[in-house]
Amino acid sequence: MSDKKPFRHRPGRRHRRRRGGLKPPAQEPGTPTYVGLHPDVPMRIEAFSYDAEHFESLTTDNAAACQRFQQPGRPTWLHVTGLREAEKIAALGQGFGLHPLLVEDVLNGNGRSKLDQDDAWLFITLRLLRLDPAQEHVEDQHLALHIAPNLMLTFCESPTDVFHPVVQRLRDGTGRLRAQPVDFLLWALLDAVIDHYFVVIEALESRLERIDEALEDGANRIEIHDLHHARADVIALSRKLRPMREITSQLSHSDSPLLSNATRIFFRDLYDHAIHAIDQTDDLRELSNSVRDYFLASVNNRMNEIMKVLACVSAVFLPLTFLAGVYGMNFDVLPEKSWRYGYLFFWIACIVIVAGMLWFFRRMKWL
Amino acid sequence: MSDKKPFRHRPGRRHRRRRGGLKPPAQEPGTPTYVGLHPDVPMRIEAFSYDAEHFESLTTDNAAACQRFQQPGRPTWLHVTGLREAEKIAALGQGFGLHPLLVEDVLNGNGRSKLDQDDAWLFITLRLLRLDPAQEHVEDQHLALHIAPNLMLTFCESPTDVFHPVVQRLRDGTGRLRAQPVDFLLWALLDAVIDHYFVVIEALESRLERIDEALEDGANRIEIHDLHHARADVIALSRKLRPMREITSQLSHSDSPLLSNATRIFFRDLYDHAIHAIDQTDDLRELSNSVRDYFLASVNNRMNEIMKVLACVSAVFLPLTFLAGVYGMNFDVLPEKSWRYGYLFFWIACIVIVAGMLWFFRRMKWL
Amino acid sequence: MSDKKPFRHRPGRRHRRRRGGLKPPAQEPGTPTYVGLHPDVPMRIEAFSYDAEHFESLTTDNAAACQRFQQPGRPTWLHVTGLREAEKIAALGQGFGLHPLLVEDVLNGNGRSKLDQDDAWLFITLRLLRLDPAQEHVEDQHLALHIAPNLMLTFCESPTDVFHPVVQRLRDGTGRLRAQPVDFLLWALLDAVIDHYFVVIEALESRLERIDEALEDGANRIEIHDLHHARADVIALSRKLRPMREITSQLSHSDSPLLSNATRIFFRDLYDHAIHAIDQTDDLRELSNSVRDYFLASVNNRMNEIMKVLACVSAVFLPLTFLAGVYGMNFDVLPEKSWRYGYLFFWIACIVIVAGMLWFFRRMKWL
Amino acid sequence: MSDKKPFRHRPGRRHRRRRGGLKPPAQEPGTPTYVGLHPDVPMRIEAFSYDAEHFESLTTDNAAACQRFQQPGRPTWLHVTGLREAEKIAALGQGFGLHPLLVEDVLNGNGRSKLDQDDAWLFITLRLLRLDPAQEHVEDQHLALHIAPNLMLTFCESPTDVFHPVVQRLRDGTGRLRAQPVDFLLWALLDAVIDHYFVVIEALESRLERIDEALEDGANRIEIHDLHHARADVIALSRKLRPMREITSQLSHSDSPLLSNATRIFFRDLYDHAIHAIDQTDDLRELSNSVRDYFLASVNNRMNEIMKVLACVSAVFLPLTFLAGVYGMNFDVLPEKSWRYGYLFFWIACIVIVAGMLWFFRRMKWL
Amino acid sequence: MSDKKPFRHRPGRRHRRRRGGLKPPAQEPGTPTYVGLHPDVPMRIEAFSYDAEHFESLTTDNAAACQRFQQPGRPTWLHVTGLREAEKIAALGQGFGLHPLLVEDVLNGNGRSKLDQDDAWLFITLRLLRLDPAQEHVEDQHLALHIAPNLMLTFCESPTDVFHPVVQRLRDGTGRLRAQPVDFLLWALLDAVIDHYFVVIEALESRLERIDEALEDGANRIEIHDLHHARADVIALSRKLRPMREITSQLSHSDSPLLSNATRIFFRDLYDHAIHAIDQTDDLRELSNSVRDYFLASVNNRMNEIMKVLACVSAVFLPLTFLAGVYGMNFDVLPEKSWRYGYLFFWIACIVIVAGMLWFFRRMKWL
Repeated sequence: MSDKKPFRHRPGRRHRRRRGGLKPPAQEPGTPTYVGLHPDVPMRIEAFSYDAEHFESLTTDNAAACQRFQQPGRPTWLHVTGLREAEKIAALGQGFGLHPLLVEDVLNGNGRSKLDQDDAWLFITLRLLRLDPAQEHVEDQHLALHIAPNLMLTFCESPTDVFHPVVQRLRDGTGRLRAQPVDFLLWALLDAVIDHYFVVIEALESRLERIDEALEDGANRIEIHDLHHARADVIALSRKLRPMREITSQLSHSDSPLLSNATRIFFRDLYDHAIHAIDQTDDLRELSNSVRDYFLASVNNRMNEIMKVLACVSAVFLPLTFLAGVYGMNFDVLPEKSWRYGYLFFWIACIVIVAGMLWFFRRMKWL
Repeated sequence: MSDKKPFRHRPGRRHRRRRGGLKPPAQEPGTPTYVGLHPDVPMRIEAFSYDAEHFESLTTDNAAACQRFQQPGRPTWLHVTGLREAEKIAALGQGFGLHPLLVEDVLNGNGRSKLDQDDAWLFITLRLLRLDPAQEHVEDQHLALHIAPNLMLTFCESPTDVFHPVVQRLRDGTGRLRAQPVDFLLWALLDAVIDHYFVVIEALESRLERIDEALEDGANRIEIHDLHHARADVIALSRKLRPMREITSQLSHSDSPLLSNATRIFFRDLYDHAIHAIDQTDDLRELSNSVRDYFLASVNNRMNEIMKVLACVSAVFLPLTFLAGVYGMNFDVLPEKSWRYGYLFFWIACIVIVAGMLWFFRRMKWL
Repeated sequence: MSDKKPFRHRPGRRHRRRRGGLKPPAQEPGTPTYVGLHPDVPMRIEAFSYDAEHFESLTTDNAAACQRFQQPGRPTWLHVTGLREAEKIAALGQGFGLHPLLVEDVLNGNGRSKLDQDDAWLFITLRLLRLDPAQEHVEDQHLALHIAPNLMLTFCESPTDVFHPVVQRLRDGTGRLRAQPVDFLLWALLDAVIDHYFVVIEALESRLERIDEALEDGANRIEIHDLHHARADVIALSRKLRPMREITSQLSHSDSPLLSNATRIFFRDLYDHAIHAIDQTDDLRELSNSVRDYFLASVNNRMNEIMKVLACVSAVFLPLTFLAGVYGMNFDVLPEKSWRYGYLFFWIACIVIVAGMLWFFRRMKWL
Repeated sequence: MSDKKPFRHRPGRRHRRRRGGLKPPAQEPGTPTYVGLHPDVPMRIEAFSYDAEHFESLTTDNAAACQRFQQPGRPTWLHVTGLREAEKIAALGQGFGLHPLLVEDVLNGNGRSKLDQDDAWLFITLRLLRLDPAQEHVEDQHLALHIAPNLMLTFCESPTDVFHPVVQRLRDGTGRLRAQPVDFLLWALLDAVIDHYFVVIEALESRLERIDEALEDGANRIEIHDLHHARADVIALSRKLRPMREITSQLSHSDSPLLSNATRIFFRDLYDHAIHAIDQTDDLRELSNSVRDYFLASVNNRMNEIMKVLACVSAVFLPLTFLAGVYGMNFDVLPEKSWRYGYLFFWIACIVIVAGMLWFFRRMKWL
Repeated sequence: MSDKKPFRHRPGRRHRRRRGGLKPPAQEPGTPTYVGLHPDVPMRIEAFSYDAEHFESLTTDNAAACQRFQQPGRPTWLHVTGLREAEKIAALGQGFGLHPLLVEDVLNGNGRSKLDQDDAWLFITLRLLRLDPAQEHVEDQHLALHIAPNLMLTFCESPTDVFHPVVQRLRDGTGRLRAQPVDFLLWALLDAVIDHYFVVIEALESRLERIDEALEDGANRIEIHDLHHARADVIALSRKLRPMREITSQLSHSDSPLLSNATRIFFRDLYDHAIHAIDQTDDLRELSNSVRDYFLASVNNRMNEIMKVLACVSAVFLPLTFLAGVYGMNFDVLPEKSWRYGYLFFWIACIVIVAGMLWFFRRMKWL
């Protein structure tokens, strides 16, 4: 029990509660303010510059250093963690050519996942989901990617290891990653994100199956909270994944000069994965509805069983008790009292009543 | 309790009841009549004229004064509050070039949200929602916007402070607002409206979560009314927001000469916000369905618990009472009566019966 | 009660029962036969001929008289009430150029609402709904409109006052109606029809709200029939309004030479109204589902309350009765019987049992 | 009861059971095998040859005779009943130019309704539904139509009188049928088929209404089987009619040289009828859902009534019985026993208890 | 019972449990790893080379042997069973020109069904379903088909006899199969796959009907697990078949040079079959919902019956027992006790009470 609790609902509830507030209504847009759940993570920039032969990396919290780090003709990837210092983010964005509205999207941890594009850039926001190592709850944060020629900016709210394998492949030079332009890196990053979606879907499916089995084993105390929270999580997951269909579809059909023909088949593959994830979430939703129906039917069935026992016990013993009550009466004249076999006849009557009731219950198919 | 009541249902009910009637069927259109819930708010016009350097304002209830106030080449914004004086509204509309059917739309407080456009003007009606400061209920009124070159007319039924920050930005000259044509003002106003939608959605979500938690804590008396009213409010909100998808989509794709290319990205952003609000409302709807299912399952579960206790108590005590009844009979011949250990045997029989029942209940997994 | 009954279900049921039969299968089409619910209304024709200066009217049952009444160059409107004399209708139709299949559509009181058009004519069938003055039930009949240059034919099954205000405006010469060609009259008639839809929707909504309030006030006897009939009426209304979306949309986009550009904005307005009516009906449907859920939850809740009382009473008195039964036994040896404070101890035991039960119920949150 | 039984479910069940098997998987297509429910109907061909002046008919089971019967320049209609002799059907098909895959479609009694066309032919399969004269059950069989210039082939599984009126009109020469090419015959046949759909829909609607009324009258034993079978039949009907939308739509938009412009308006009319039938089936589905909700609510309501009676009886008599038990105890010291008005006081106490309980029940609104 | 068990749920559960894991997140794509449920099946290649006159076959596990076996100008079909040796599969794929991403798709036993095409190849993945001969459970495996000019590669996870009839037809030279290019073989294989879908659908339908009948016969113990598992299987089947719509549609509209015009009508037929299968699955879904409703209604109905018996027994015997208790009291003064006909009067009172209750129950329509 205790190991499932954190995954179950307390975080979910707090999460929804702590949404980090809304942007004050009718504020002038473009004013950089961070809105989200991680206001205590300091900004840190990991910068990577690579080509087929070279690989350099730098960790800093200084936007100017990043600009100096960038080398012409070589892909540069800046991975920014921690968005609380909104002005520094805005300055960094300005330094690398982000439109103020996009900076606002970067800083809005509750924004909608979307893809925006222009001739010169591609901008994507999405949810980064990750099952924590203890498999106890899902870490959910906002991720923004900005792609320009030879430039990849990624912004996330709190540290995560989702991209470590990609960094590792860059560092080791294995695979095609280092020899390709920045759109291939985009694909690698999105592929990592979507792979983690499947891990989360898998975990949710296991939860539903555990509940299903508990129901089937006729669990002593049916964990109805679990089912309710699992269903809420399926709905939430579904909402988070839904925009991925459009984003990946746009990527695989985009005629942006940033996307080469060679990577198109990879983005089509990504689209297949996204659709698959969305389909699986829809199936989870149907499955959760089916489990709910099963739960209700089980409860009703069980109630029937209980009622049958209650009705049988009552129907057997109420007449018997009445009969015993009759012969406990104190009428002066009560002929049976003085019969010799009165007591015997009483028991015979009882047996007849019980037999009749049993016959009746069997005919009603209650026993 | 008391603080939630006004938000909950009495206003909702009265609101629906007091819809302000319908237009008499088959009346000649174009006859100016106000239809709505605020027939007691007198008309007041706030007029603003501005450009990058200047800002003037005027408060009046005289349409002619407004026409004199308008200065060629400068954006003018007339904000009209209170629609009960239908003829004055019609006169104002005529003075500024509104089609009679549009005037009718302005005066119909129950109309459908929509966008209508022509080469020379853009006309939008929508719902203006605002959570009152005490967070107790949602103020819902009808808002009409009419845009022509260098002219913005806004009509609302009762005073509201939704646009105060926009007026403040105009007055202070902060941001880009004063240097831009009137389409940027349109965007600022719509942005303010949609920001308030999120506040209302947030409040509804909190209500559903409060109900959810009350259910989870096994509230002594389940507030089923609350859930029902929250669901009705979600349905109503959903209906009010739904047309925003089309309105903002049309704005971001419109080729109206009134909308400059520079603001198009802002309207696209607006469209994203509207979609996000609609998506969140859809999720609220699903959430409310899930809470309903949870409620029903909880009630059924609780009924099961009650029935189990009832069945156990009956199944234990009915046989015992029968047994006690037997030995309370007055047969002259009742051998056990005179046994020495009869009473002891009776209690032993009772214990055996109770133990058997408990074993049975445990096997049935009731205890 | 009695005042709502006619509105509620008996008419509905009879209506569905008395549908007036079906066309005999596989009959040759074009044979004029009236199919519908008003076979006892005799045919009557009201003819109106008007232009900006003149207005003439004629009431007859003679098709030939109508043809003589028609004046070249002037709009003529023939309003036919009562369709039982199918041959006369067919003759009238032939005289004014209706295709035989259209005559069949005119005579089929159960047909589907639709718009059919050709270069020379426009033909519309729809449902004419009207709340009777006593607000007791909805009069539902079939209406057919046929428009040709300077000619408007309307056919309805039984007398109605829906078009009286339009006739009044024609007669008085107020508004634009008399100065416009016949497409403006079409708009005025459809507008009158749709205005009455809103009256019917309003009435249905009040019914649902009355049921909702009755539920909320914990009505002694829940009027489940009412809810069921209201839901059936919402479904039926929804089916009747649904085709209006397509009809009004086609009208506002039609390139028929019969529709002038000047009236197009009026038909667009009509389309908005139709969509609004359909949206409201959809909301009624959702509302009725929500009321149903509320009803089921209330019933279940109430059952819980009843069961709690039953379980508490049983759990308190069954043990007590058993105890009383024990000391009513007639064992010769029953030591407590002769104790001095036996009776006192008995009552103390009773009080302990009751207190224990109450403590248990409180812990279970039943009290 | 007995008259509804055959219509109700036993035939339905057997029907589904006796589906006539599937084509053996992965068999070479084009091998003629009959798959269906009527393997015992021998083949019979009714041949009709007609033009405006002539009409000839022939009944045979010989395909060659049919070919001889066909006269150039005159429409010929071959109506084949009974498909068990697959080879003869295939031979007939080959003689009149059917593609082997179409012959397979003719012979597959479980196939999907569809329209297939080529420059030289039109091929339609659909379900032929017919309420038997005793109105007891629906005869459901497979119908295939093949149209080529001056040739109409129709294939059905078992004898039916659906097309008798059409034959009659051909024979009598009434109406336009004989003077028109074969596409008009196609329309007449499809119109007959769809007219029978309405008869079946009508019968299903009556069944649902009968159930509805039985519920309303508080039927002693609610016929839940009936509702379940009616719903299954609505689902099945809906599935059978659904493809008609596409078939009739294709017919009314087809540019096949087999369809003349003159019949196009008739096919459009057919499309309207098909849509109407599908709409009505959808409404039946909603109606059946509403009846189900009504049923569940009624059962729950009734359960509430029962529980109230049970709870009241228990709550009144359990305390009374306890009290009687107390004064049936045999304690030596039981002061009330010897009171003079003890018995009177007992009855007064009983009345007080009953009155208190009644007051409580009234406050709970149970009585 | 025992014969249905394996089909019912244990395999299903284990199947879902043993999904064979996920690809490690963010791994470099193109690395060949088998993901699926059959890691213990060794690779085996059956190679067939044929034309109108010749037929040769070879069974091997050597990719190089296959390349030697291939003869120019003749269709070659390699059927690969067992995917655990990922490197050998990758080598084979490379030898016959598969893109690395397609090899990954071949090796992913949990991938989504899809069609991918290029000028030079067509690639299809789908689910191969087969009811095992004992009709006890459904074998579900992943199938990949790759078509290039004169080349067909098929990959499946474990041995199956679905394609035996096709091989037989190739071997025997019956039918058109051997004389046609490889697209006709593609059609034959897909036709075999879809034919087996119908077998599985049929089996599921029988299961649902068995449950339905059990419900109708008022089965002693309602097999609610069966229903729940059948519904889960319907959902799963629906998910597996859904992509077939798009795949077969693309095939019948594809302009790939690999598909000749002659086979197009066969692919259109295939599309019809796929749609039919999907429609039937949708109907199964509706049917299963209807059965669920039926189940819930039956349970509720039965509960009503039980409650009625309980309420009647209680309402009859509680008053009687009270009356017997009264005359069992030991008051010194209890006048009736010494009445001569007291005992008789007691029984008369009992009969009156019983008669009154029976009258009441009949009026309530409980009996």
